[in-house]
Amino acid sequence: MVLRLRLYSALYPSWGPICLFPRSFASCSGNPASCCTMPQLGLLHGRAWAVLFGQLRRPPGAVCIRAVHSHSQVAEAALATQLKPHQEKSNFIIKTPKGTRDLSPEQMVVREKILDMVVSCFKRHGAKGLDTPAFELKEMLTEKYGEDSGLVYDLKDQGGELLSLRYDLTVPFARYLAMNKVKKMKRYHVGKVWRRESPTIAQGRYREFCQCDFDIAGQFDPMIPDAECLKIMCEILSGLQLGDFLIKVNDRRILDGIFAVCGVPESKFHAICSSVDKLDKMSWKDVRHEMVAKKGLAAEVADRIWDYVQCHGGVSLVQQMFQDPRLSQNKQALEGLGDLKLLFEYLTLFGIAEKISFDLSLARGLDYYTGVIYEAVLLQTPAHAEEEPRNVGSVAAGGRYDGLVGMFDPKGHNVPCVGLSIGVERIFSIVEQRMKTFGEKIRTTETQVFVATPQKNFLQERLKLIAELWDAGIKAELMYKNNPKLLTQLHYCENTGIPLVVIIGGHYTGKSCG
Amino acid sequence: MVLRLRLYSALYPSWGPICLFPRSFASCSGNPASCCTMPQLGLLHGRAWAVLFGQLRRPPGAVCIRAVHSHSQVAEAALATQLKPHQEKSNFIIKTPKGTRDLSPEQMVVREKILDMVVSCFKRHGAKGLDTPAFELKEMLTEKYGEDSGLVYDLKDQGGELLSLRYDLTVPFARYLAMNKVKKMKRYHVGKVWRRESPTIAQGRYREFCQCDFDIAGQFDPMIPDAECLKIMCEILSGLQLGDFLIKVNDRRILDGIFAVCGVPESKFHAICSSVDKLDKMSWKDVRHEMVAKKGLAAEVADRIWDYVQCHGGVSLVQQMFQDPRLSQNKQALEGLGDLKLLFEYLTLFGIAEKISFDLSLARGLDYYTGVIYEAVLLQTPAHAEEEPRNVGSVAAGGRYDGLVGMFDPKGHNVPCVGLSIGVERIFSIVEQRMKTFGEKIRTTETQVFVATPQKNFLQERLKLIAELWDAGIKAELMYKNNPKLLTQLHYCENTGIPLVVIIGGHYTGKSCG
Repeated sequence: MVLRLRLYSALYPSWGPICLFPRSFASCSGNPASCCTMPQLGLLHGRAWAVLFGQLRRPPGAVCIRAVHSHSQVAEAALATQLKPHQEKSNFIIKTPKGTRDLSPEQMVVREKILDMVVSCFKRHGAKGLDTPAFELKEMLTEKYGEDSGLVYDLKDQGGELLSLRYDLTVPFARYLAMNKVKKMKRYHVGKVWRRESPTIAQGRYREFCQCDFDIAGQFDPMIPDAECLKIMCEILSGLQLGDFLIKVNDRRILDGIFAVCGVPESKFHAICSSVDKLDKMSWKDVRHEMVAKKGLAAEVADRIWDYVQCHGGVSLVQQMFQDPRLSQNKQALEGLGDLKLLFEYLTLFGIAEKISFDLSLARGLDYYTGVIYEAVLLQTPAHAEEEPRNVGSVAAGGRYDGLVGMFDPKGHNVPCVGLSIGVERIFSIVEQRMKTFGEKIRTTETQVFVATPQKNFLQERLKLIAELWDAGIKAELMYKNNPKLLTQLHYCENTGIPLVVIIGGHYTGKSCG
Repeated sequence: MVLRLRLYSALYPSWGPICLFPRSFASCSGNPASCCTMPQLGLLHGRAWAVLFGQLRRPPGAVCIRAVHSHSQVAEAALATQLKPHQEKSNFIIKTPKGTRDLSPEQMVVREKILDMVVSCFKRHGAKGLDTPAFELKEMLTEKYGEDSGLVYDLKDQGGELLSLRYDLTVPFARYLAMNKVKKMKRYHVGKVWRRESPTIAQGRYREFCQCDFDIAGQFDPMIPDAECLKIMCEILSGLQLGDFLIKVNDRRILDGIFAVCGVPESKFHAICSSVDKLDKMSWKDVRHEMVAKKGLAAEVADRIWDYVQCHGGVSLVQQMFQDPRLSQNKQALEGLGDLKLLFEYLTLFGIAEKISFDLSLARGLDYYTGVIYEAVLLQTPAHAEEEPRNVGSVAAGGRYDGLVGMFDPKGHNVPCVGLSIGVERIFSIVEQRMKTFGEKIRTTETQVFVATPQKNFLQERLKLIAELWDAGIKAELMYKNNPKLLTQLHYCENTGIPLVVIIGGHYTGKSCG
């Protein structure tokens, strides 16, 4: 502080030394009419107050601070001046579009913290930034999302190209790689995506939401980038202190192998995979019904699938599946199992193997995955010791998609890719909820110093001083009034959590300090 | 570095002390077959190289680094392995929508730097963050942009609400204030906006572009927040070192006053204001023609306007206009002049008055301004001393809009607002161009350490080590190969500007060092 305060004395050399009083505001007399002398200002609710004042050859404490109320009186006055909300209804409806919302300053602070943390992890792993337009040519998005294609937002044809808002950040990334013939890239992308889903806002699902993606494109030795993606998910989820979590891992080739050995016709692989994907939200009874009644699968085939998809465990389950008499006959499944074995080796070296569960029920909705897939779920500590930790929803997911870039390339040249997406909206609502529960107060500004005065006609001095603070890189505010009341100024600091106040004044008359 | 390297010794205690050699790589023998001992590795193009190696009871320098080529050989090898670009054309066109672009990692670095600088200035002035959806209900945007309304992107009616992409950040801010009955707020917003303009990409104009807005809403004493907006523009433009600049200031009430005293019928104020706005791109002859031939203004009225709009100057021009026999009879103009006088007082206190020019030709396109308006232009230093500095385009602008919030409020309650928008796209292209001119190289990653090995079968050790680095918060990368060549690894560091390499190795056999 000392260096900065030297600035003030340079501005007002006639004022002599500068004083900083970290004292208790609470000790100030409750009588609004009484005069608080300098030593009575200071700490307000544990925050330090810097008091700068004009000495003009008078001893410290001579500056007159009028009308400093006790805290309860401040609160009372604030209540009285609060605006009454409009109760009347009107035909004019003013709202944001369905499934969207504004982010308030409080929410922006939480979001910024979380995004900073996520992005710094991506940068720690050597990722470059990339940005793509909010909309793409409509044809770029077709045949990428399977059954979900109906959820894409299209733009109106206003005479020009047919455009759609991006549905995720993965397809634009693949388009970028193909368009620029990039064969190798590690990139992150934080941006909004849009899906015309029926929003369940209570669960933190919106039609407009933010995604944080990290992807590694390029031809490399097996499972090294894949293992890094899982490491990143662990680092982010641990770093955000969201509690215990688990990452479920599976492989599309193992799933296909299971379907094959269970007797699913190849034409139904995608449809049955979709059904398996619903096992985290629906009971087996309902999923089985969908498979048999809606998708025409033989009941005994469904039951054979059920025998497999119940399995979950660590690396030993990979070994067990290698020895499975039926699955071990399937080439695709063996490839997947071989890769998972290698993956677990690397995850052990990364020290995160115990966070990973090989889960045969994990299917992931999107069409474009071709190899390993994964999904991180938060575990809720159960109320009773005998209960199992409860899955409170997926917060990150990803997988390998080796065929997507080829869909854009004129010659079908492929670039193998693996990546992950952090479900930050879900994380935002969890963190917000947690802050509400613990009654944490959020500062929505970063202002360090407030420039106040108890005196009239001091605007010029305030403006001169605050410009010097700004020019010195100090975050500072003042009241946009010619003659604000000191109480109002201190009250503003109190409400917005500004830790330091510079109170400037001029001639001491002694009149109002009687 | 010492503290971080302690980490490595903890991991490989058997390796004994760790060595860091800041030596000249250039001093290494050019013979690829020769063995470079430790002291020969080190500084490569002025960057320090950290070399960590396995001692295994051998003296330092015993580790074998094979195939370290001279720099020219590295460059040659790199050229030989570069991929040939596809020359063939195809019917399949892969592109971004018209007027939009991807931002490459290099562009993202420049953008991030500029945005950080802009946002930190906004925060220095106590602004809170706010975010609004990319699209609004269509009706929220109608009747806000005058003639430009046709440039709004509409979404397709897919069964639901009629939506439009936001055209600026000001209207969503006003909608937010009215919707939440906020009477006072200082907020910043960085986000994309969309306009269906015919893009002149060479000038840095796009259909999708980023805006950085700062606004102060609330009823305050005159011109204090307005002066702060101008101070912010100065801080940002100085901070970005874009060269000399000037902020033109005018007031809508003064313009209306001029139109009134010159004899423009009130119904034509908006249309004539639009014409005046074109004076920075068109000659007076063309603007006059538009006024007279297209907008039906009497020629002598147009000429009277010309007498006024040629005027520009400092605070003395404000005084001069106060004494103007016609203008001083107009109530609106007097209000505007009074406010400008006060504004100049505050700008003098802020120390920025010499950057401000009262320019009667400044009109600003948007309909919603009601008071002071301003626009910052960069001045190009002329090639010849006798020439005037040339205006190379507007990079920031704003003004007062006291009626916009009331357009959203069911009861028409107004909240006075003043704000500014930084034209960051223009600034991006200026900075990009400058970097190209000066041949500045941009690092697109922040990686601090690369984990390399000259030996085969060292992936496990590399993975273990890099996980420790990541867990310690160090930005680190490795090659996703089981047995990468050391040359390839060093080459990667060279290309991406990674300053430190950890080279790990095991048993020294001596064989290849012959």
